[in-house]
Amino acid sequence: MAEFTHFNEHGRAKMVDISDKKETARRAVACSSIQMSKEVYENITELKNKKGDVLAVAQVAGIMGAKQTANVIPMCHPIPITGVDLTFRWEKKENKQHELHIEAEVKTKGSTGVEMEALTAASITALTVYDMCKAVDKGMVIGPTYLLEKSGGKSGDFKREKELSEK
Amino acid sequence: MAEFTHFNEHGRAKMVDISDKKETARRAVACSSIQMSKEVYENITELKNKKGDVLAVAQVAGIMGAKQTANVIPMCHPIPITGVDLTFRWEKKENKQHELHIEAEVKTKGSTGVEMEALTAASITALTVYDMCKAVDKGMVIGPTYLLEKSGGKSGDFKREKELSEK
Amino acid sequence: MAEFTHFNEHGRAKMVDISDKKETARRAVACSSIQMSKEVYENITELKNKKGDVLAVAQVAGIMGAKQTANVIPMCHPIPITGVDLTFRWEKKENKQHELHIEAEVKTKGSTGVEMEALTAASITALTVYDMCKAVDKGMVIGPTYLLEKSGGKSGDFKREKELSEK
Amino acid sequence: MAEFTHFNEHGRAKMVDISDKKETARRAVACSSIQMSKEVYENITELKNKKGDVLAVAQVAGIMGAKQTANVIPMCHPIPITGVDLTFRWEKKENKQHELHIEAEVKTKGSTGVEMEALTAASITALTVYDMCKAVDKGMVIGPTYLLEKSGGKSGDFKREKELSEK
Amino acid sequence: MAEFTHFNEHGRAKMVDISDKKETARRAVACSSIQMSKEVYENITELKNKKGDVLAVAQVAGIMGAKQTANVIPMCHPIPITGVDLTFRWEKKENKQHELHIEAEVKTKGSTGVEMEALTAASITALTVYDMCKAVDKGMVIGPTYLLEKSGGKSGDFKREKELSEK
Amino acid sequence: MAEFTHFNEHGRAKMVDISDKKETARRAVACSSIQMSKEVYENITELKNKKGDVLAVAQVAGIMGAKQTANVIPMCHPIPITGVDLTFRWEKKENKQHELHIEAEVKTKGSTGVEMEALTAASITALTVYDMCKAVDKGMVIGPTYLLEKSGGKSGDFKREKELSEK
Repeated sequence: MAEFTHFNEHGRAKMVDISDKKETARRAVACSSIQMSKEVYENITELKNKKGDVLAVAQVAGIMGAKQTANVIPMCHPIPITGVDLTFRWEKKENKQHELHIEAEVKTKGSTGVEMEALTAASITALTVYDMCKAVDKGMVIGPTYLLEKSGGKSGDFKREKELSEK
Repeated sequence: MAEFTHFNEHGRAKMVDISDKKETARRAVACSSIQMSKEVYENITELKNKKGDVLAVAQVAGIMGAKQTANVIPMCHPIPITGVDLTFRWEKKENKQHELHIEAEVKTKGSTGVEMEALTAASITALTVYDMCKAVDKGMVIGPTYLLEKSGGKSGDFKREKELSEK
Repeated sequence: MAEFTHFNEHGRAKMVDISDKKETARRAVACSSIQMSKEVYENITELKNKKGDVLAVAQVAGIMGAKQTANVIPMCHPIPITGVDLTFRWEKKENKQHELHIEAEVKTKGSTGVEMEALTAASITALTVYDMCKAVDKGMVIGPTYLLEKSGGKSGDFKREKELSEK
Repeated sequence: MAEFTHFNEHGRAKMVDISDKKETARRAVACSSIQMSKEVYENITELKNKKGDVLAVAQVAGIMGAKQTANVIPMCHPIPITGVDLTFRWEKKENKQHELHIEAEVKTKGSTGVEMEALTAASITALTVYDMCKAVDKGMVIGPTYLLEKSGGKSGDFKREKELSEK
Repeated sequence: MAEFTHFNEHGRAKMVDISDKKETARRAVACSSIQMSKEVYENITELKNKKGDVLAVAQVAGIMGAKQTANVIPMCHPIPITGVDLTFRWEKKENKQHELHIEAEVKTKGSTGVEMEALTAASITALTVYDMCKAVDKGMVIGPTYLLEKSGGKSGDFKREKELSEK
Repeated sequence: MAEFTHFNEHGRAKMVDISDKKETARRAVACSSIQMSKEVYENITELKNKKGDVLAVAQVAGIMGAKQTANVIPMCHPIPITGVDLTFRWEKKENKQHELHIEAEVKTKGSTGVEMEALTAASITALTVYDMCKAVDKGMVIGPTYLLEKSGGKSGDFKREKELSEK
């Protein structure tokens, strides 16, 4: 059975030693989403033109969140992120809900991957949309949140066969 | 149409003024989850007894994450959290996957609610489980993440009719 | 001669004891600005409509910066900010430069004032505009940065007779 | 027209990808200042000998502030700073005010420059002097704050022709 | 047997609920120390007059450290500290070593005590002295670090009968 | 006399310039301890099996604390830690007290050592044990805290002849 690497010989958590891993270009893409009522959806999309831009705030939050990853995920190595980009896509669901799809891409040149940075960026982005819209609707649902792909590093590339939302 | 409160008259984001809101006891409960293969599930549940405890680390991360909420969610007010508790529950899914359900309860005595603190705690907990198990399986899926209930404050109580996972 | 309060009897810095000060509503407004070439000005104002919004990012940075005040200013008390708002105003200077005026208003209900939070918010906002435009012009100049007014608390209200930029 | 680099093709902010930039020695020097009444000036300069040292606190704040740059400036890359030094210089102004000039020098060996780190260090230093002296005078004015020079990196060196205060 | 309060009914860590505890004035005093060679001692005490002041830096670090307590101690409640003061005292030991005694006093008006804030402030102060002097002597020893006294709150006052260093 | 390196020519603190130091593998091990009554000792050791695990929380705190070192120690360089491990050992003292020995090992591949990261990790671990047990006993004593060994870097290796607790 494959084994976890985050424990020492006493069965206690440790930050895995990556001193001997090579510095290579690495990249990870994570997805999240937030499903909301038509009312919230229209508020967001109309606000952008008229009154303000929820997604601009969420975008900034996601990028800054990527930089906080090693401060909030205990066993994560601090790594110098070299790039973060976030993209949004709207989908109209059959249940009259609207879903905002969030894709976070993070890059580094380092000794370990940026999967957690991408997942954290996507999560913080979705949480920020929730925060800014919760006065209108507290029933919004975040996720699924998952890794779409990663490349670089010894453990090889990873790619989900299809996005969860297409299932 | 109900309106967002997080924008000023120039259509730019602001932190809403809550100076005149009363300090009351407030409570929020949020849920998240992470779905994983049988292999990861067995690693986690057997590790607890033999080698180490993934959920103990995730629990600490979630509690500390609750305290970082106002640092990562841009328009969130900094509030003195008075209590955080996290509980886990395992569910065996039909698709041979196992799902770890996470429930985060946060309390405060303050001028605004703790919905974001509960949602952030649940999210960070799930992300930490992902981080500690990703060496075995990168295909784990986080969420749905949502508010289960809140009480206290002028906007009244909120309670989802049933947990999403029961649908 | 009026004396500094931030030193103990050994001549060493301390965080002043405010345990006995009353919790009252307090408010402070600080100003900063950033002067830039016509090229940067046009990039910012045209981008808003076409390609992106520098000021939206700076606005978020300023609000989040207000919440970091006690973490970056050593003797500052941590206080629960109850509201932050930032406004922008453009001025065309005689020297063909354009100046972006930034006004930051911060509120609290607490035992000490929010002058530092307002000044920090205004400064971080200006620094963020610099960061986002420096690829085009590194010669931009920030400031003057100053307190415009404060109210609440024992030390009384303060108000500059006129804004510095009007002199 | 030169263009901003901090936006993606959807017109949304991103952290620019610097994965392919070379790691080189880089250095930046930024200036700020704070203008104050004779009373505050004498308090600071006499305190140093008798009762305590405002500038020693501001110096520490500026150095620690440099390390917080990527946490407060949204699109800033986290980079490993390799050195920070701050120097002070007093100037007596014609208007009977005294001006404390602050010069912050930051170095790194990395893939992007340290202009923002130097500007942030200088700003936090000035804000700390304000904080420690505001009990005596709330009318102090910070700035102008600007980049004096930078070297290293592809975009070439930058140097202001003369310091702003000499104009 | 008295029992720990930091675990829930599942045996997992929680942040204790203090929502119902009364806000009262609270105070705690903690002690730490650092023992060093005569060479380091003379460097510190002579530097103060001639070249620089190690203890001024350590003082600032301790005060800022007190404000980071809830961010580094997992189950600690975030509380609004209302005052921090640190004092130093030198002692010449029989073994030709010199010991710097550090006393940290922290105050709050809140629902829980500030013992951890005082202990953290004292610890960070000692660590900072070590950092600044380690180029001369890496053999310095920190501690013992302990709570000297606390007052306020339901659990009553606490006072060590004598300081550890007097034993 | 050997001299401190953390001051500039004006006698003010600076972050030492390490731009020209070589990146090498570095490692440091620091020790701390916490002495407690038999009652606390039994609570901790029995809890592990029955009700919860104090040391699991302290372990996480220590590892996360290592990552905060440059944020709390003013002149510390931010460095990318590549590994952290913590181990515990119990000792029964003659005075009926029990002492928990903490050993923190930190690694990096960088331009400066990780002594401060190891010392900070050990200190935060001990403080967390104190926090979680203080409801039962406020008289626990932390330390001595000291560097056991370091390797890598120009200044050469360091190793205490024997652990302090064996004296």
